[in-house]
Amino acid sequence: MTDLAPILAEADKALPQSLDRLFDLVRIASISTDPAYKADCRKAAEWLAQELKGLGFNASVRDTPGHPMVVGHHDADRPDAPHVLFYGHYDVQPVDPLDLWENDPFEPAIKEIEPGRKVITGRGTSDDKGQLMTFVEACRAYKAVHGGLPIKITILFEGEEESGSPSLKPFLAANEDELKCDFALVCDTGMWDRETPAIAAALRGLVGEEVTVTAADRDLHSGLFGGAAANPIHILAKVLADLHDETGRVTIDGFYEGVEETPVNIKASWEKLGRTADKFLNDVGLSIPSGETGRSVLELTWARPTAEVNGITGGYTGEGFKTVIASKASAKVSFRLVGEQDPAKIRENFRAFVKARIPGDCSVEFHEHGASPAIQLPYDSPFLTKAKSALSDEWPKPAEVIGMGGSIPIVGDFQTMLGMDSLLVGFGLVDDRIHSPNEKYELESFHKGIRSWIRILDALAH
Amino acid sequence: MTDLAPILAEADKALPQSLDRLFDLVRIASISTDPAYKADCRKAAEWLAQELKGLGFNASVRDTPGHPMVVGHHDADRPDAPHVLFYGHYDVQPVDPLDLWENDPFEPAIKEIEPGRKVITGRGTSDDKGQLMTFVEACRAYKAVHGGLPIKITILFEGEEESGSPSLKPFLAANEDELKCDFALVCDTGMWDRETPAIAAALRGLVGEEVTVTAADRDLHSGLFGGAAANPIHILAKVLADLHDETGRVTIDGFYEGVEETPVNIKASWEKLGRTADKFLNDVGLSIPSGETGRSVLELTWARPTAEVNGITGGYTGEGFKTVIASKASAKVSFRLVGEQDPAKIRENFRAFVKARIPGDCSVEFHEHGASPAIQLPYDSPFLTKAKSALSDEWPKPAEVIGMGGSIPIVGDFQTMLGMDSLLVGFGLVDDRIHSPNEKYELESFHKGIRSWIRILDALAH
Repeated sequence: MTDLAPILAEADKALPQSLDRLFDLVRIASISTDPAYKADCRKAAEWLAQELKGLGFNASVRDTPGHPMVVGHHDADRPDAPHVLFYGHYDVQPVDPLDLWENDPFEPAIKEIEPGRKVITGRGTSDDKGQLMTFVEACRAYKAVHGGLPIKITILFEGEEESGSPSLKPFLAANEDELKCDFALVCDTGMWDRETPAIAAALRGLVGEEVTVTAADRDLHSGLFGGAAANPIHILAKVLADLHDETGRVTIDGFYEGVEETPVNIKASWEKLGRTADKFLNDVGLSIPSGETGRSVLELTWARPTAEVNGITGGYTGEGFKTVIASKASAKVSFRLVGEQDPAKIRENFRAFVKARIPGDCSVEFHEHGASPAIQLPYDSPFLTKAKSALSDEWPKPAEVIGMGGSIPIVGDFQTMLGMDSLLVGFGLVDDRIHSPNEKYELESFHKGIRSWIRILDALAH
Repeated sequence: MTDLAPILAEADKALPQSLDRLFDLVRIASISTDPAYKADCRKAAEWLAQELKGLGFNASVRDTPGHPMVVGHHDADRPDAPHVLFYGHYDVQPVDPLDLWENDPFEPAIKEIEPGRKVITGRGTSDDKGQLMTFVEACRAYKAVHGGLPIKITILFEGEEESGSPSLKPFLAANEDELKCDFALVCDTGMWDRETPAIAAALRGLVGEEVTVTAADRDLHSGLFGGAAANPIHILAKVLADLHDETGRVTIDGFYEGVEETPVNIKASWEKLGRTADKFLNDVGLSIPSGETGRSVLELTWARPTAEVNGITGGYTGEGFKTVIASKASAKVSFRLVGEQDPAKIRENFRAFVKARIPGDCSVEFHEHGASPAIQLPYDSPFLTKAKSALSDEWPKPAEVIGMGGSIPIVGDFQTMLGMDSLLVGFGLVDDRIHSPNEKYELESFHKGIRSWIRILDALAH
């Protein structure tokens, strides 16, 4: 093992300059969804490429049909070191409503929000500029002391993460050889709490479907036809009600194929985290877990698949009342996937499930809204073990290996297109107000984030 | 009996002017459910009062807390003539979705839809402006030839029929002496077919309810909460799916209390009408009766009660997809009643049925949208016999005495509040697309409707 003390000391000493650089990046209003900020997005990409070049990366801004990518390469000290792809995104969310911000979103500042607790304010400080800069600054400190880096690094910064990443897949496909590494480091997630770092090892996948049931070829008067004509809302309600049995299990054929029970030791470590159903649900006005019976809320949201109706509409929904039997009714349904569930098969079996419940004189149409498989990093992956140990050395409490209920499409793309696993490490907190006014990033997240990456870089080399 | 030939000839001759007047009325967008059209509703009322005054009625617009009523009185030629209340409504249904209309709904036109078959297009042409104008124009022709009317007539035009008639009961109560007649003529129903007029003797009642289920106190991200937090759309879908068993019977406690089986002879006469499920449903693109199994479509729509969802909404229903778990979901549900079913009890039992299916940490709210019991006119009523004979003289085939699937709450109110039976005579057709885009009224319905009322007015006087 390398002696990390001088590198960590270098990072501590250079913190004011590291913050100056982060502030420069935050000042660039790189809002990707709004065409008015197109030039700012390019400016942020150029700024980052310049920084990487200054660090000795072979870096460039790479055009796409949308906002540009930044790609940089740096060799390792030793030829047999692993090759890692680091991913972050330089684009940010819009800032409206602007009047709810206490500070200018694009003029970062440091605020003491309670004694001894400082935060960096501004749009993108947590999502994701502050996070990606922890890695850049870690590389800088490492090189300042050792003159080189312990592992081979390729960096990929995206500028369209907040607007659906339309250019990402084509870019990965066109640059497969250049971007394929041993594994990826993705820095766009959070800590378990302020003292406990976390590595997300399981991410649920997602299948989105829109279902439209058509009965009569027009809206009917419920007096004239009620009792004799099919009502598409009844048909749809029956389909949706049938999706779960009385124990909360999804009833679609083969739905649980590829779903493994979570290992007992992992479940036990989750239990110790103390997120009870009460605590988790009370925040949003609920108290009773609604999914599969007999499982904890962490298991339900991290390790179990779901079928969820996200929207439904049919018939008259305005003010007052209209005694109509609608011609059509539709629902948007999504499935969160875990383990080895196959998105294409889930979609196919769902469609068969619906079709089996449509009367012979009615029809159903489906509309696809995306699909991504679940991600499951093997719990015994050596990268995971090394990163966990490195993080545990830095923070007051040991790192936790957790799941994530939502999907991060890039992780699926790395897996399916480049055959790479991803290690998800980030230092955001649940109260960072990403996507909302007054976004902040803990100063400690930034500082100890840099120190964490120094430790991880070194651990991965050995 | 009066010589009707000159009166009928007068109606034929004046048809172009009668149409002009109907067109003027249809052009007024008197949508009663939408507050944006409040002034148009008043304008329609004023237009009608003006027309009645022009015919020698003592007529006026009468304010209510909602849209105004129009009331007009006209004496008979002879003091011993019966006194009849004629009812129609000037308000119309909303027109959305507007892009499905082939013509402007408020710019009526005459279209030849097949050789020799002309229709009047526009919102309200059939429901109910075209219908009520057949009576006004019949009075006009009768007076043009005879200088007077053969029976004493009170006219009541309502402007809230399509929005639950909130002002009607208070108005009847406050004006009982003025409005109580020997019986009522209600013109808001249809023909059996294009050649066969009909008098409705049985009408289903109606109970309207709006149900809103609330789960979390805000919309949730389905990645973070999916699988653990209650989804109000699932809860609502289950409630609605549970409303019917697999034989199509409504499962609410006590729902069939007061429902009698239809007499065998009535069922036999209905059978002779030849309305098979195929014929009835094919017109609207369906073929399989969807209600209680083992009953004819006439029985299902005239003599059996229903539970029907008229609208549902919840979560994200716009373009694309949003992985949200909604806070709320709601449905508009109506019940068609027959026989002695008690509207208040049906509502109460429905609410209990829903509440029993709401998880302990979720809540439900109900909103009442009107209630009316079912109506049954005695088959041997003398008014019925006279009107049946008059109608049979005008049309190619004899008039039929039928049931009706829809409720006309006014008929119940006339019975319970003013002690009057109602004779339901109208000239709509089943394919008039009332409540839907491209509403139309047959030109022949309008023309022979006027002639029919001339015959009925005279028949009732003798």
